[in-house]
Amino acid sequence: MLKKGMAEPSTAQEPVRFETHPSRYTHLKLKTEGPIARLALDVVEEKPMRPGYTLKQNSYDLGVDIELADAVQRLRFEHPEVRAVVVTSNQPRIFCAGANIYMLGSSSHAFKVNFCKFTNETRLSLEEACAHSGQHYVAALNGVAAGGGYELALACEHIVLCDDGSSAVSFPETPLLAVLPGTGGLTRLVDKRKVRRDLADVFSTLAEGVRGKRAKDWGLVDEVAPKSKFDEVVVARANAFVSQTPEKKGPGVTLDALDPKRAEDGGKITSSYKFVTLSVDTEGRVADLTMRGPDSAAPGTAEDLRKLGAQGWHLRAFRELDDALLDLRFNHPGVGLVCLRTEGDAKAVRAWDESLAKLSGEDWFAKEVLLFVKRTLKRLDLTAKSFFAIAEPSSCFTGTLLELALASDRTYAKAGDEPARLGLSSLNFDGLPMSSGITRLEARFLADPSRVMALAQRLAGGEPDVDAEGALELGLATFAPDEIDWDDEVRLAIEERVSLSPDALTGMEANLRFCGPETLETKIFARLSAWQNWIFQRPNAVGERGALTMYGRPERPEFDWRRT
Amino acid sequence: MLKKGMAEPSTAQEPVRFETHPSRYTHLKLKTEGPIARLALDVVEEKPMRPGYTLKQNSYDLGVDIELADAVQRLRFEHPEVRAVVVTSNQPRIFCAGANIYMLGSSSHAFKVNFCKFTNETRLSLEEACAHSGQHYVAALNGVAAGGGYELALACEHIVLCDDGSSAVSFPETPLLAVLPGTGGLTRLVDKRKVRRDLADVFSTLAEGVRGKRAKDWGLVDEVAPKSKFDEVVVARANAFVSQTPEKKGPGVTLDALDPKRAEDGGKITSSYKFVTLSVDTEGRVADLTMRGPDSAAPGTAEDLRKLGAQGWHLRAFRELDDALLDLRFNHPGVGLVCLRTEGDAKAVRAWDESLAKLSGEDWFAKEVLLFVKRTLKRLDLTAKSFFAIAEPSSCFTGTLLELALASDRTYAKAGDEPARLGLSSLNFDGLPMSSGITRLEARFLADPSRVMALAQRLAGGEPDVDAEGALELGLATFAPDEIDWDDEVRLAIEERVSLSPDALTGMEANLRFCGPETLETKIFARLSAWQNWIFQRPNAVGERGALTMYGRPERPEFDWRRT
Repeated sequence: MLKKGMAEPSTAQEPVRFETHPSRYTHLKLKTEGPIARLALDVVEEKPMRPGYTLKQNSYDLGVDIELADAVQRLRFEHPEVRAVVVTSNQPRIFCAGANIYMLGSSSHAFKVNFCKFTNETRLSLEEACAHSGQHYVAALNGVAAGGGYELALACEHIVLCDDGSSAVSFPETPLLAVLPGTGGLTRLVDKRKVRRDLADVFSTLAEGVRGKRAKDWGLVDEVAPKSKFDEVVVARANAFVSQTPEKKGPGVTLDALDPKRAEDGGKITSSYKFVTLSVDTEGRVADLTMRGPDSAAPGTAEDLRKLGAQGWHLRAFRELDDALLDLRFNHPGVGLVCLRTEGDAKAVRAWDESLAKLSGEDWFAKEVLLFVKRTLKRLDLTAKSFFAIAEPSSCFTGTLLELALASDRTYAKAGDEPARLGLSSLNFDGLPMSSGITRLEARFLADPSRVMALAQRLAGGEPDVDAEGALELGLATFAPDEIDWDDEVRLAIEERVSLSPDALTGMEANLRFCGPETLETKIFARLSAWQNWIFQRPNAVGERGALTMYGRPERPEFDWRRT
Repeated sequence: MLKKGMAEPSTAQEPVRFETHPSRYTHLKLKTEGPIARLALDVVEEKPMRPGYTLKQNSYDLGVDIELADAVQRLRFEHPEVRAVVVTSNQPRIFCAGANIYMLGSSSHAFKVNFCKFTNETRLSLEEACAHSGQHYVAALNGVAAGGGYELALACEHIVLCDDGSSAVSFPETPLLAVLPGTGGLTRLVDKRKVRRDLADVFSTLAEGVRGKRAKDWGLVDEVAPKSKFDEVVVARANAFVSQTPEKKGPGVTLDALDPKRAEDGGKITSSYKFVTLSVDTEGRVADLTMRGPDSAAPGTAEDLRKLGAQGWHLRAFRELDDALLDLRFNHPGVGLVCLRTEGDAKAVRAWDESLAKLSGEDWFAKEVLLFVKRTLKRLDLTAKSFFAIAEPSSCFTGTLLELALASDRTYAKAGDEPARLGLSSLNFDGLPMSSGITRLEARFLADPSRVMALAQRLAGGEPDVDAEGALELGLATFAPDEIDWDDEVRLAIEERVSLSPDALTGMEANLRFCGPETLETKIFARLSAWQNWIFQRPNAVGERGALTMYGRPERPEFDWRRT
């Protein structure tokens, strides 16, 4: 157990790294053949991410899920020719047994929650690929899909279940483990697949799950096929998706390694990427995350952008941001506050943004870049740390970088003789919605949508920038202290923030950040995850005699029967 | 601390009773003067509901909130002449300090959660009175409104804050107590009042709150008034509401006491009301809740209904159900499963339903009855226990009573030679929406709205009833065992349900019951409450050195800084 008041418990462990490549996959087999990709789970039992458990029955841990996230991402960028992806298993009788229970049982609460969140984000990106990238996922369940295994299938666009008398879909979490199918499972069951709630109730309490025709009748799968015809049915379905989906002009764009330089100096751990610097003050529990604007001219055409490939500013800079956010979540759990800073030329950011806005309407790669920026900003919204945007004279909180400020819990903009400036681009109005489906500007001005209109008119009228005082007036900045007050006010705000309860802040931010409409996505993170977080804390799951703790032992778990 | 495995820890304490009357109020002063009511908080410090804390600074415990719920309810039924309600304080400099911290600190987790839920429901019923009953609530903040005190104000339609240099609104929960303003506060801030999220962030971390003009500028209150003009401004606002609101034809209908008979026999605690019997098997952790249909002819006119008053079937039966549900929540925390049963004549229920459907369009009292049935069914949806509807030959799951089955997690309907029958009335299609704004039938058939249409056509075509097998086919029943299997199947289902983790079931049901759209109301109960539940469990709040535990002591709380 962690001693209370300890600042950074994770540093004792090897940090988790999220960069990988198909050539280094341990657990997944990715093969493309013309327009169809085959993504097979073939989890190597004896290669868990951390020692202490074995990955039996195609169960997964974060290591497996990092490979899955990488595969989904690379298919979108590197394989535009792929229009259908078959997700299946290379192991007999088991598709996937879900998240590994011993891994969960031996993980800290914070790790469990972050693991589930990352896994959820990967499933959502898979759904986004179906909806927006013309890559349609078919789950080919050639064995049991239990818990997270069935949740993976639920994220696919079409589910085929083998009707062989043993293949089944199931949610054994509640009956066997006293927790929830928390990786989107319950929400996708009743909200995406619209399974009747009483049937969903029966299904979610039935450890052995549901097979064959009944699975189809209840809406749990889309198709069942006998063993003899299973492969045929799956291929036919994949081909049907292919024939319905327009071809994209290749070639793909290779995602190279980010390879940040890491250094530790005087209590600060710094990761230096090309456009991003993350500097973590472990003792002070604060991090500075700085993003730099473009260092080259914006591409004029889709060909120009293609030539830059993964080195183009948006893709490179936001991949770096994405990696830094995951680093913060998993490797720096003690950090409570992230100060978001920017540096560079606002005009250059705007030029790149306008180029991306234009090209994403005509070119698949530009569209993929925009979708990636959108996903990364959502990852920021969903990171359980406080964010303060700190805008200074050298900052360039403009367009896509203004979104960093709009995603922050507060924005401090320096006023005075040499004020910070904030600026707009078209992408603030379209293309980068939050999980709730509305833009960050729309969420900010929920009370008065005319303010969003007024900002759009400023941009259209050639006045895209505003100084700190103007930003305060327009509602883009929270505070605009002048140079006399700046240092003290920012310092005090930081000190105060890191003194508050991390739990209360997590809950508070999860409520304040997502006003307005709810979607499948926000339901998963707000309603389902919040409940799962609660259950992950309860003695009935994780106590000495809790079900997660007792799993695999001969004794029964013991419950405190009080319902809340 | 409760020993694990204990079945029913609450029986040691006096049970909580929810029936009260203005003549017995300890803490509230309710006065009506023509169309305006004045509801003043004047909490008696030394009269807490349980010994062990004092109710300083107009802070509240469940005892105070029971009076508030009663007052809001009686105003609607007994005082149709009232069109504006001024909520204020009779104590100097303090409007209300929110939920009493020492009460929270000394309560069990289950009690805290149930207390917050009840309080939330009361606030929502106050909002419903503003929206649907022509009773407009004005919060007259003549002192500090902190935490739950400000949340009470947020539930009102209009907030006037005294600009006297000390009156303020505040959410000190996060900075002082390491918990959330969980009684709708955060949701109402950004979703109802649409306060900008960064300002909401500042406000929610500022223990001392916000006063005067700034409170108005940030959208935290609607109006500020200097002390000299405060009363005048409040009265003017109340009069404005009165003049905009149509008069209702009196007189009011007095809500008499329900006075159930309680008995304990052979391990069963039975509460017998006129139309409801609640029988709790403490050892088995199961309760039977039986509702009986009408014993008199349905009223033909609004006058007939008025003559029956509080004895009319719907109002009496659902008031009893409401009381029984609160009894289950607070006094039987160990009960995990409630079997809902009905008895009586389906035709009589339908006749009463059709009468209510018709009269509620023309008469305020009938409308109030319908709104009350709606609220009670929502209370059922939100009760953290499993519900199985058990339909037998003598049952009458029809119309408003069919809603009990539709609100249940599963429905077992007995098939065979003498089958159970389920039936429809107009009220299944209109008038009784869930918190999500859709009917229970719409939620059930989210995948296929044509099924709801088909049911409506059956009803219109004079075929309102269906037997168990038909109900199974139509999707109204989950299972329809015949007389050979019935006993075993129901018994096994009950045994299995009560063996599962109560936490996992609570989380699972909270997700499966509310598919489809989200509203302010569902956001409060799902998102906000789920987070608050989690935080209420965390050592940072309730641990030995947690902020709730340490409140009022000289030492600072100690936190585990890991963010999740």
